[in-house]
Amino acid sequence: MGWHYAALEDRLARLGHLEGALAVLNWDTAVCMPEGGSAARGEQIATLRRLAHDLLTADETGELIAGAEAESDLDAWQRANLREARRRFVRARALEPGLVEALARATNRCEMVWREARRRSDFALLRPHLEEVVRLVREAAERVGGALGLEPYDALLDEYQPDLREDLVRPLFERLARELPPLLEAAIARNRPALRPGGPFPLSAQKTFVRALMARLGFDFRAGRLDESAHPFCGGTPTDVRVTARYREDDLASALMAALHETGHALYEAGLPRRWLGQPVGEARGIVVHESQSLLLEMQVCRSAAFLGFLARELAAVFGPDPAFAPANLRAIWHRVERGLIRVDADEISYPLHVVLRWRLEKALLSGDLPVAELPGAWSAGMAELLGVVPPDDARGCLQDIHWPSGAFGYFPCYTLGALLAAQLFRAARAALPGLEEGIARGDIQALLAWLRLRVHGRASLLPFAELVAEAAGGPLSVEPFLDHLRARYLAA
Amino acid sequence: MGWHYAALEDRLARLGHLEGALAVLNWDTAVCMPEGGSAARGEQIATLRRLAHDLLTADETGELIAGAEAESDLDAWQRANLREARRRFVRARALEPGLVEALARATNRCEMVWREARRRSDFALLRPHLEEVVRLVREAAERVGGALGLEPYDALLDEYQPDLREDLVRPLFERLARELPPLLEAAIARNRPALRPGGPFPLSAQKTFVRALMARLGFDFRAGRLDESAHPFCGGTPTDVRVTARYREDDLASALMAALHETGHALYEAGLPRRWLGQPVGEARGIVVHESQSLLLEMQVCRSAAFLGFLARELAAVFGPDPAFAPANLRAIWHRVERGLIRVDADEISYPLHVVLRWRLEKALLSGDLPVAELPGAWSAGMAELLGVVPPDDARGCLQDIHWPSGAFGYFPCYTLGALLAAQLFRAARAALPGLEEGIARGDIQALLAWLRLRVHGRASLLPFAELVAEAAGGPLSVEPFLDHLRARYLAA
Repeated sequence: MGWHYAALEDRLARLGHLEGALAVLNWDTAVCMPEGGSAARGEQIATLRRLAHDLLTADETGELIAGAEAESDLDAWQRANLREARRRFVRARALEPGLVEALARATNRCEMVWREARRRSDFALLRPHLEEVVRLVREAAERVGGALGLEPYDALLDEYQPDLREDLVRPLFERLARELPPLLEAAIARNRPALRPGGPFPLSAQKTFVRALMARLGFDFRAGRLDESAHPFCGGTPTDVRVTARYREDDLASALMAALHETGHALYEAGLPRRWLGQPVGEARGIVVHESQSLLLEMQVCRSAAFLGFLARELAAVFGPDPAFAPANLRAIWHRVERGLIRVDADEISYPLHVVLRWRLEKALLSGDLPVAELPGAWSAGMAELLGVVPPDDARGCLQDIHWPSGAFGYFPCYTLGALLAAQLFRAARAALPGLEEGIARGDIQALLAWLRLRVHGRASLLPFAELVAEAAGGPLSVEPFLDHLRARYLAA
Repeated sequence: MGWHYAALEDRLARLGHLEGALAVLNWDTAVCMPEGGSAARGEQIATLRRLAHDLLTADETGELIAGAEAESDLDAWQRANLREARRRFVRARALEPGLVEALARATNRCEMVWREARRRSDFALLRPHLEEVVRLVREAAERVGGALGLEPYDALLDEYQPDLREDLVRPLFERLARELPPLLEAAIARNRPALRPGGPFPLSAQKTFVRALMARLGFDFRAGRLDESAHPFCGGTPTDVRVTARYREDDLASALMAALHETGHALYEAGLPRRWLGQPVGEARGIVVHESQSLLLEMQVCRSAAFLGFLARELAAVFGPDPAFAPANLRAIWHRVERGLIRVDADEISYPLHVVLRWRLEKALLSGDLPVAELPGAWSAGMAELLGVVPPDDARGCLQDIHWPSGAFGYFPCYTLGALLAAQLFRAARAALPGLEEGIARGDIQALLAWLRLRVHGRASLLPFAELVAEAAGGPLSVEPFLDHLRARYLAA
């Protein structure tokens, strides 16, 4: 290993520590910070981000990368680390500081206006701000695309899931747009009436319950925490993973599944290889892969009939007997599907249709085919076509998500690609692990976790996306395992 | 205001934001972080410290300071800000990076060994590490002293309390060393038997009680928090002050007074002027002044007979009637004095004697008059002289404090100078605020707080130490108000 590479690792480690510090600040902002701290916190975060950006884009970083690339004795992990460092460097240098600043200012402002616009269901309020964000994101996508040799939309996809391309997304999403509507229709007809668990469920008992469940699934509380925040998330760093949940006394079900979803993210972070912590190659492989881990745990494992049987016993043991805790009733609750308006409340059949809509619209917005002013109409038309419902107002329509106001175009597809990958990985795991379902019926997923650690978590960013999928799931990303899973769960019985 | 000064403020603001981020990380380490996060946290903190150090010591910082010093149109706050920036710059540049690093490494190591040495009461284990720390601190003190034109020990005092000098400390401490032993003797003879509050006191009720008391004293929970940690402290930033406490079911009294002490620190931070947040002039005036605020609240206000009368009613209202909650019994508890071995457990009469001992010994260690190897013997001799007791082992002797192993020489005097200043300020406040004691008897200190905000908190670092003391307390720092206070509380009735 030559000195360029060694010096580069040192520099990247500092960058990693800055990002780790930012993760703690972000967690604190959502979980701990009183309102008075808000202004100073914004400045602290902006300062650390700027220092990280300066460190990454410095000429010296480029020289170290180039020097290391000329060194011949690197092993596979080091070469992958160098590849990821180069990717970040090129991406960060592609945008001149003025554009970065303009984007930060425009998205901050647009996010603020969006909160008000959504509250008042007033798209006209948002429109000029969203137009500015679209304009700047388009410009940034062209610059980054130019530097990476990518089409603009690919440059955006690539930010969230490195190596993801529209050519991969299109056929998968076109297939889902055709197959899911009739599947949804058939599944709705099979919804069973469900008893709502009575409650009220004391918050402290819910917390203890979620904590015990997380521990049972493999979350290590010596290297992580569970707290509360307005929106559940998984933050922190791999040796100190911070999961949050939100509890309501009258609604045990949603807090529980949200926490299990975040636990899937957390197990991925916790399983990243210790040797490479803080280096680019040591990070999770991208948003698609991350979402595959949360959905694998939530949708494939925890909403399975086997797990719900286990959960039924645990719930009754902790909260006392309740007819709503019967396994069949838990299935009726957690296998219910509907034509809803809101993405985050959607079941796993309709969710991809919400995503397909956003994928179509964000491409049209960026290409200019769809003027921002016409977004509400296009949204309603798309909802009618894909889901058969039309939002009564923009708050429950095109104003429901923060992604576009915050500048995140190209992010939505990752949710559904993650769902596909989750089904595909779980199918491979079932084939490889004969006693898997019996384990799940006892609330024991240690064998599955070990399999994921080997195939996904422990590989971090060693392999490019497509290679990781092929090696871990046994083939290219595909819709079949996902559709098979939906048919088995929603149409079989 | 010229461009040099404006550019300097920008640069200092970034430094302030980095320090704010560090405050959050340090709070999180003590309050939230699971053990698994420890290694990564150490790296995050070291990285941020290094970035802050690089920013402060950069040539450009020096050029901006020099340029601003040549600008003639600065107001008093700006000039003071510049003075404080110059002080920090000179101090940080006085130490070459190699010495900074050697000190960081030696104190980290010495702290770790100290924990083990204290547990095993084994001074020999600590000795070589403490010798190395003393050697490096001496070298650093010489360098900084050279740069600031100060004697080495003055350079150390000046780090914790800018402008504090041994010439001020010596006569005050020599007087205390003479006056306090007979006063302690007389006060011990007047100790009254005290009932221990029975308990157990549920932890959640204690937390609620402390929280309500803090709010009543003026702590704003919209700009701060109360949490738990192994050692109570006050951290965070002025708009997000983080107080911690430690509760024990069987000991209501110590948690309570410790939390009130930290609340005194917190009210100071919260009262710093908003306009100057994040700039050097906007920070607290030093450790002596900080300690004066915590001791003013704890010792002058909350241990007064008036406040204990109020507290007696509150305790009975929340925890139910208990003969131990009688006002006379609370006074017997909180006015008890003794010849103890441990500084942190000491009452307000014996505490300064613990400090005088450490002040004498640390000067002798630094000058070389006292070899580290002879510290245990010198400690015992000093305890016998000043307090009339001799520790049975080094764990309860010279191994009890973390300060020296962590490199903090010159810090101990601040505690006692803070106690003197607290008494002096409180005497001035009583003269200025006729209804003060009646307010305190109702748990209402708003008039006192307003007075402190005007005289101390709101002035931040505008004035040099001696000027602040003179303007706020009406004269130079003196032992008389403190001795008068002790005589009134412990010898009068």
